[in-house]
Parts: sequence; C-alpha cells; structure tokens
Amino acid sequence: MGNDDADYAPLSLDRVQIEGGFWGPRIETLRHTTIHAIYKHCKETGRIDAFRLTWKPGMPNRPHPFWDSDVAKWIEAACYILAAHEDESLAQVVEETVALIANAQQPDGYLNVFHSTVEKDKRWTNLRDMHELYCAGHLFEAAVAHYDTTGSTQLLDTACRYADHINGVFGRARGQKRGYPGHEEIELALVKLYRATGAERFLQLAAYFIDERGRTPHYFDEEARERAETTKPNNYSYWQAHMPVREQTTAEGHAVRAMYLCAGMADVAAETGNAELRAACETLWENVTQRRMYVTGGAGSSRYGERFTFDYDLPNETAYAETCAAAGLVFWAHRMLRLEVRREYADVMERALYNGLLSGLSLDGRRFFYSNPLATVPRTFAYLPERHVAAERQEWFECACCPPNLARLLASLGRYAYAQAGDTLYTHLFVNGAVTARLDGQEIHIEQHTQYPWDEHVRMKVRCAAPVTFTLAVRIPGWCRDWRWSMTGRYKDSDVRERKGYVYIRRTWQPEDSVEFRFLMPVERVYAHPHVRMNAGKVALHRGPVVYCLEEVDNGSDLAALRLPSTPHFTPVFKRRLLGGVTVIAGRARKPVAAAQSGELYSHLPTRTKPTSFIAIPYFVWGNRGTGEMLVWLHGP
Amino acid sequence: MGNDDADYAPLSLDRVQIEGGFWGPRIETLRHTTIHAIYKHCKETGRIDAFRLTWKPGMPNRPHPFWDSDVAKWIEAACYILAAHEDESLAQVVEETVALIANAQQPDGYLNVFHSTVEKDKRWTNLRDMHELYCAGHLFEAAVAHYDTTGSTQLLDTACRYADHINGVFGRARGQKRGYPGHEEIELALVKLYRATGAERFLQLAAYFIDERGRTPHYFDEEARERAETTKPNNYSYWQAHMPVREQTTAEGHAVRAMYLCAGMADVAAETGNAELRAACETLWENVTQRRMYVTGGAGSSRYGERFTFDYDLPNETAYAETCAAAGLVFWAHRMLRLEVRREYADVMERALYNGLLSGLSLDGRRFFYSNPLATVPRTFAYLPERHVAAERQEWFECACCPPNLARLLASLGRYAYAQAGDTLYTHLFVNGAVTARLDGQEIHIEQHTQYPWDEHVRMKVRCAAPVTFTLAVRIPGWCRDWRWSMTGRYKDSDVRERKGYVYIRRTWQPEDSVEFRFLMPVERVYAHPHVRMNAGKVALHRGPVVYCLEEVDNGSDLAALRLPSTPHFTPVFKRRLLGGVTVIAGRARKPVAAAQSGELYSHLPTRTKPTSFIAIPYFVWGNRGTGEMLVWLHGP
Repeated sequence: MGNDDADYAPLSLDRVQIEGGFWGPRIETLRHTTIHAIYKHCKETGRIDAFRLTWKPGMPNRPHPFWDSDVAKWIEAACYILAAHEDESLAQVVEETVALIANAQQPDGYLNVFHSTVEKDKRWTNLRDMHELYCAGHLFEAAVAHYDTTGSTQLLDTACRYADHINGVFGRARGQKRGYPGHEEIELALVKLYRATGAERFLQLAAYFIDERGRTPHYFDEEARERAETTKPNNYSYWQAHMPVREQTTAEGHAVRAMYLCAGMADVAAETGNAELRAACETLWENVTQRRMYVTGGAGSSRYGERFTFDYDLPNETAYAETCAAAGLVFWAHRMLRLEVRREYADVMERALYNGLLSGLSLDGRRFFYSNPLATVPRTFAYLPERHVAAERQEWFECACCPPNLARLLASLGRYAYAQAGDTLYTHLFVNGAVTARLDGQEIHIEQHTQYPWDEHVRMKVRCAAPVTFTLAVRIPGWCRDWRWSMTGRYKDSDVRERKGYVYIRRTWQPEDSVEFRFLMPVERVYAHPHVRMNAGKVALHRGPVVYCLEEVDNGSDLAALRLPSTPHFTPVFKRRLLGGVTVIAGRARKPVAAAQSGELYSHLPTRTKPTSFIAIPYFVWGNRGTGEMLVWLHGP
Repeated sequence: MGNDDADYAPLSLDRVQIEGGFWGPRIETLRHTTIHAIYKHCKETGRIDAFRLTWKPGMPNRPHPFWDSDVAKWIEAACYILAAHEDESLAQVVEETVALIANAQQPDGYLNVFHSTVEKDKRWTNLRDMHELYCAGHLFEAAVAHYDTTGSTQLLDTACRYADHINGVFGRARGQKRGYPGHEEIELALVKLYRATGAERFLQLAAYFIDERGRTPHYFDEEARERAETTKPNNYSYWQAHMPVREQTTAEGHAVRAMYLCAGMADVAAETGNAELRAACETLWENVTQRRMYVTGGAGSSRYGERFTFDYDLPNETAYAETCAAAGLVFWAHRMLRLEVRREYADVMERALYNGLLSGLSLDGRRFFYSNPLATVPRTFAYLPERHVAAERQEWFECACCPPNLARLLASLGRYAYAQAGDTLYTHLFVNGAVTARLDGQEIHIEQHTQYPWDEHVRMKVRCAAPVTFTLAVRIPGWCRDWRWSMTGRYKDSDVRERKGYVYIRRTWQPEDSVEFRFLMPVERVYAHPHVRMNAGKVALHRGPVVYCLEEVDNGSDLAALRLPSTPHFTPVFKRRLLGGVTVIAGRARKPVAAAQSGELYSHLPTRTKPTSFIAIPYFVWGNRGTGEMLVWLHGP
C-alpha cells in the first residue's frame, strides 16, 4: 500500500453536512438551479432521448460521440445531491434516466449511443478519437454514485455487464485488442467499480489500460491502418501515449486527459501498491504543480490541443485552463492524498477549487466558462482564434463536458473535505457544517464552524455521547505563514504533533470539546518563478486560498498599465452585497495620467503616472457583471 | 496635386550610387548572392518553367496561383540591380525569363500560369482567393522595371496588353465584372504602368479598383454565388472590403494587403488630386503608425489571417509582422512623401527598413524570415500554432512572397533615399555613396559620406563644374533630439530653414562645398504607449534608427527575467568582427540569482536578483548565430 493508513478513505457523502458559510449557499444554488439547468440542456439537445436509440439518419439531434458522458455526469451529480438532500422529483428524473440507459444496453453488454445509432458498424474501431471508453468510464462513475446513493443495483449491474464486455474485447490475450482510450477516464472509473463491487477484474482492466498506454507499436496506428488511414499522428503526446506512463516525467498533451490519466494512475497505484506507478505519479505531480500550473490551479496553456506546452509557459490572455482540467487536478490531488497525506496535495486541491474551478460557474448557477484565462483583452474584438476566448460565461456548449463536471465535483465536495483512516479523521478543506464518523467505536459528530476563506477562524467542535479517543488531523494550509490554535479540555503537549503540513491531535475528547484554529490571512503578493516570462515584474494578490483579480467595472480600462507601489498597503473589506458576498482588496496604485492616453505610440518619455485606488475581487467571481477587462498579474515592483 | 511640388519624383536608380557604409556591402550581398539564390529556388521549384505552360495533371511542380508573382518580383529586383551594375550573365537570365513570360501570354492578352494550366476554365471566377489580379500587378511592376533598366518594351508591351484585357473585363460598363482583387497590388502597379506609358486608362482602372472595393452588394459574394458556393465570409475586413476605402479609418485584415492597398490609394490620390482619398490615406497612416505598428516597423499582430487586430494590440512573441508587411509599409511611406514631404513618413520608412524589414534577411543573404516576432520562446518546443514561429531563417517558402519582395526593395533603395522636385533635391535616407541630378541646368554630383546608422555624422559634398543654385533638403530624423550642422562657403542664415522635419538649404553652391550634419545618437530607452498592455513596465533600447534586442547567445537564457536599473548606463561599442560589423550596446542589469532557478512556482518571496552585464545587438541581425531566446522589450523601472 502506498499510504501508511491502509484503510484511508473519504467519508461518504451522507456523513458530511455542508451548510452556511462559503459553500452552503453555493451547494444550494447547485441543487436548486444548476442541476436542473444542465438536465434541461441535455433534454433539449436530445442527449437524454438519444438513449432510446431511435435516431435515424435525417432526424434532428444526431447523437454525438461524447453525449453519453454528459448524461452520465449529470446522473452522478444528481446522485451526490440526493445523498445529502432528499428530493423526490429529482430522484424520479434520475430513475427515469437510469432506466433509459439500462434499456440502451445491447445484448452483449455494449452501451454507447453514437455507435448504436449513427455508426453502428464502427464499434471499437477508433479508440483514438471516438471516446467510447471515455463514455463508458463516466457511465461507471454514474453507476457507482447511483448505487451509493440509492442502493439500487440497476445501473451498477448495467455498468458491470458493460465493463465485462470491455474486459473481453481488450487485453493481451489472443484475439483481444491491445487498445487503450484516446481520452482517459475509464481507468479511474474501473477502480471505482472495483471498490463498489470488489471485482478484481475491473482493477486489473484499469491497470491494463494504464500499462498498455504508450507502448510501441502504437495501437492508434494499428487501428488506423485497419481503418485504411494512411496518415499517422505526429504527436502521440496529445494522448499521453508518446511513451509508457511510468517513463513520463512531464505532463503532456490535452490537459484534461492528462489529469484523468494521472488520477487513474494514482488510483491503481493505491490499490496495487505498485511503487513505480506511484513514483511516476509523484514525478508528474511535481512537474504539473511546480512547472505547468496557473496560479489559479488552471492547467493547459494552449487552446490548440487544449494542452500543456512546456515548463513555465503560462501565458495569461491565451491561457486555456479548461474548467474540466481544474476539476481533473482536484480529482488527482484527492487521490494523491490517499497515497500520502501531505499538505501539498490538499493545497493544490484547494487552489484549484477556490479559483480556476469555481470561476467556471456563474453566481446564479446557470452559466459556465469552458476556458478560464488570467487576463482578458481591453475591448470586445472580433474573435481571434489564438488569443481571445469568450469573456462571458455561456449557458451551454456543443461539447458540454464542463457544466456537469463542475456539478458533480461541487456536489461531492464533502468527499474532498474529509477522510478517515482508522481512528484518524482528516480535515483537508474548511467547510462550514458537520461530519459524522464512527471513531473509537462511537458514532460522533464534529461540527465545523467557519467563514473561511473570508475569515481566519475555523472551529471544530466534537459532539459525542461519551468521551472518545481519536485523532483529529487538520491541514495547515500551505498559503498560511502564521497560525494559532487553542483547544478546550485537558490534553498534553505531546497529544499534538505536526506532520507533512497536518496537525494531528490525538486525545480523549469530551463531549463539547473544541479546537479552534486561526489562519492569519494578510493580503499577500505572490511572485511567479522567474522562468515564467509572462509574469516577470508582476505579482498576483492572494488572501488565504483566494487569488484576486482586477476588473474593468471597478477600475476602468487599461488594467495592465496600473502599477503597484514598492510598499503597497492593502485593505481587505468584506462586502456583503457584492457578488454574493465577497472580501475585496482595496489598494493604491499608480496609473497613467489621462494626457498619456493620446500620446505617441513610441516615445523616449516614460509614461507619466498619478496615484489611483483600486479594488481587487476574487478571481472566481470575475465576469459576473458583464464583459470587460480582467487581470490577475499586476505590475509591481 | 497633393504635393506642393507637382513634379516631385524619386531619382531613378541609375542616378544613385550606393557603396561602402552600411548599405554598400548589403547591396553587394544582394547582387552577388540573394538574387541568384532566389532565382535558383524559382527555377528548382518549377516557377520559371511553369511559364512554358506545359504542365499537365500528374506532372510534378504543379503551378500554384501565386507563382507568377514570385518570378515577376525576381525580374523587378534583377532589373533594379542591373540599373546600377552591369552584369551580362544576370541580364541574360532576365531576358530569357522575360521572353518566357511574354510567350505565355494568351491571344486575348490574358497571362496567368495557374489559370492557363491547372484551372483553365476558371479565369476571373474567384477574385477573392485566386490572386490573378495580384499576379498581374507584379507583372506590371516587373515590366516597368525592365523597361526602365533596359529600354526594351517587350515585357512592357505584354503588360499593357494584359492590362487592356483586364480593363475590358472589369469596370462598371454593361457586361463587365464589377470586381476588385482579393489581394491588392494591381492598383499601385497600374499607376506605375500609367506613369511609364502615359496611358490614362491604366490610372482610371487603378482608381476603379480602389473605388469599387467594399461596396455592397459584395462582389466576393456575387462571384461566390456564381461558383455555387453557399457559405459567405463573415469578415470582409480580411480583404479590406468591409466598407468603401474612403470610409475606412482603421487598417484591418491581412496586413500586406492593407499596406499595398494604402500604397495604391496614395498613388491614385497623388495622380488624381482626390482630396477624400488623400484624407483616407492620412487617417489610415495615423492609425497604423500610432496604434498598430511594432517598434520595429512590423505590421500584423496575428498569424491568423496574417492580420491587424485592434488598436494597441501588439503581442511580442506572437507578432506576425511579415517581412512583406514591413516592405508594404515602406512602399506606402514612400508614396506618402510624394503627397507631402513630412518627416514622419520618412521616419516610419527608415524604422521599417532598419528593423522589421532588414531582419527578414540573413547576413549571408541566403535565408529569410517570413514572420519577425519581437521575442522568441526560451527553448525549442514542438510547434504550437498560435505562439511559435520558426526562430530560424529559411532558405525558401512554399508561399515565397517575402524573399523577392525584400530583394526588389533593397535593390531599389536609391529610390527611397532621394527625390527631386524642381530644383530641390531631397535626402530622405542616409546612404553612403553619391547621387547625380540635373539642378539649375547643370548635371551635378553630390557625394554622401556617412557610416550611419553606426556613426552620427553625415557629410554631403557638392561636385559641380560651376556654381549652382539649388535647394538641398535633408531630413532631420524624428528619433534625433539633438543635432548640429555646419557648412562650408558663403551663405546667409536665411538660406537655411526647417519645415516639417526637413532642413532646406537654398544657396549657390560652389564646387566642393559641403554641409555636415551630426545627429547625436545616445542610447535611448523607448516606452510604448500605456495602452500597449504587453509592454507595460518595459523599454526598448534604440540608438539612432536602430532597435536593439538581447539574444541568448550573448546573455544566457531567461531574458525576460532581466531588469534594467532605474538609472541605467549604456555604452555603445562598434564591433567590427561581430555580425558583419555592428554597434552593440553594453549595459548593466539585474537578474535572478541561480538559487531562484530551482525555487517554487509561486512564492510570497520576490525573486532575489544580482547584478549582471548584458549586450544588446541590433534587432535586424538577430538569429544569425543559431536559435535561442531573443527579446526586444526589456523590463525596466
């Protein structure tokens, strides 16, 4: 086993309560608005009814190869919501949809809308491009979520039959295809299926897909030859298939695929204890988080190939930073914590969550960013493919991966916040609410009181019937350079120790005992590594885990011309009525005097500047007040 | 007439001698190497023999719609070279090629290789994309150059017959097509043909093409409908056809096309005295040079559509700045000087010439940049379409417009340096050599002695048989903030006056009289307008008209992390053995300490720096010592 704690596992969603604080209202919006909006779009575009398999050429709403995955992710999100909140009408829609999907399964177990209607004779002929295994993975994840929430095995049985079909088609035995998916996802999903069912063959199949990837001769070439294609791709790294995964030391290609692969690798490493695979995960983690990740937790520097580029290449305006890639980074980080409880993993999870992921969703829960740039251009300009992404969240996308991905992640936030191993309860994230866990033979309840990330205080209070001995392990966030804590009741200094960024408090807790942390949250200027050429001479403002940005609506245009003074002073102010209630940062800077606006394009005279004030808002709420300039990295000395 | 001097005209090339100094060796390389290299590539790729019209389907070297123009530009360049230097063998190749072209003319006057071999039945069916009128224009320019140099009318007659054919096909009369070219060029070429022949119909046809452009209904749609195409372009600005040219106030679309259009507009305005057209030229000039031009004189901010984007949008790494666009800007500036002798026009001409144009050619004269970015990425990386242009000059291109364009411009440099109007001789550029002009009824010879742009001194010496009264008008460069002059012989203060950036010296010159200018050339830090968000907090180093850059070979990698001190000290040093002899700038800066290289991606600690020295080289010689980082805009306080 990778982890010291062999039985490390996230708490199940029915044991975690999220309410009030920062996340409570967001989860409410998710379950009241977002989940329904996504279903509506799936329904209206034909994605739901496509599972009836009645589409014929000439009919509208021709199924698309990815469609199955959108519906599966919606089911998964809905089941997570239902795990925490009863909702009969939502449950009914879920059951109808599950029945539709189950009915779409072919007699041999195969289940894919596109290849059961549009291209019936092309099953498994193009793993590189056609996303069959990707869709299967999302179906498996939905099935496990449905089973966990409802106890029904209807979708789980369907998933297992399909997984068995896939297990028959792919592998190293004679007559099997030695393929692997063009878009990873099935690996981590098969591990989920294994954990839900205990069927080792699913774990072995996941390990096979991971092990087979990147071997030569390239399977993608072999299948292309069978399709009578004469051209070969020149860049297998797009699919992370340029070499076996254990040899890969840099995250390459399509960022979402890379993150999903890494998550699946971490899962298989955790289950099999394969040291090489774990080492590869750690190497790739270091590469992504120390060389290729935006300060927002965004990943993918180029919209061409939606991909990673090279170390320290993190352009701001052209950042692709797909919402799904931030989600993928969270998935991966979550699994690295299972391999080893180290603060760095949860820090990155938190960074992506509060910044590059949450930015994907509008405050009203109805609109989404696909791409999350770190700066937008000064004016509305006719689309230029290389540099301008839509600076406005959209209600839906033709390729609609991001909305249901956001929904399923946020709906399962509880699983990312807490985990348990033996009698240790881990708190990775600070989320107002409560958690129920069986510790020391007793069902106990721990309340978490916090307005984090706006407020510095986190109080955890133990509710139990009788004294209970267990370890409470709380992450000290990596962004925090000064913190305090206090605890009620009797304990010894030796009850408290710090290890890999977590405070472990092992003691006998009395009913009502509590521990309170204060994570000091000054406004910080964050500097990028000097190799990040785009950010030379610039700083990003942070407070706590939140990255800030400036918007035109608050500060006028020409944000790039603002310059922080050498000894800046920042004032964080909580604004209850602004953007759903956010802490803004007020500060002073210098900006060009108006005369300069009409000046020469090039001049030997430096731009004259004058003092100005500015307001920075959390990056994750940018673009909720119309379009305009936005900037994360500010000029400063 | 636009110009005060109705008879303003550049001096003909046989009257201008360029030798020694900065340009002499470059022109030698051009006539000894570049002109032959280009011919060789034209020959080897089939461009020359394509004029035999023997290509049949299945044969190699399938003619391309642009090919004619490459050969025409080569002839034009060769004729300019021959105007100044006899070269029997070059002359013979020119004559053979001219004969080939003349023979390719169809009985009705039509002359286009592609549409006489590959797509014979599609003449004039797709002006938007097929470049027939563009190729015709280059043929006309070649014909005029050939006639001017050789006195032979062979190619001129061919050109006139073709122009007459075109004049019959296009126009507003019944049965004529109301088309105009997708790629402008023929407009300025028809004005040349008009000036060479005196045939007014050619001027009128040029004016027609300019006037018709951008009217609705869009001709490009009409012809597309006739081709049974159902899609329409959504961006007519790519072709500068989004509105009539007199209404255009910003330079839009494909940068080379826009520059050629503007040059043609200026020509027609000069010949017709049309005030609205002249005003449109001035408005567009202001837009390009004060909003959309790189500090190198490069134009075109995006490789997508090779186009202008929006005001102040001048990204450095992704700059397209095609060599041909810099050439087009020179062509246009040259024509604006005909409308009005104002320093600004010659300043831009000089800026493009010494920087973004000359960078297009390797020192050995054999290799070319198509695109001229202002920064290159830190390491060799697999091609990413939006941000990475080849950082290495290439010997040839499939679309080979730039090499012969550079050649024809440099070979005719004399026409850009001097002009005459009445008894005023204008010196726009400083070029070591001499000029012969008929002034005050006397054939006189004026020597220009200068090592400009390396040296501050320019001495002009009059060689004449007897005293001669004329005006010598010399541009005081806009970059120059401090200059001196002295003159031999007798003159009054009132003989010398300054107007629109030119010093006019009207006097009676005695044999051997001379005037000497000293243009003080300190190293200057140039600042971009604060709206240029990419260059906020940065400076470009200039000395005289030369823009400087840093290269990795001199300064190590991570150039973007260098930072100039607040009171920098720069030392210009002429290095005879470096890069063919250039003045470099030595200076001091700060750079990150080595420890920072292994630091965290994001940190609250500013990067620690230490002093370092750097060497900046002229931008136009970058990339002559292998590939590596290059940077124009440096961080500075």
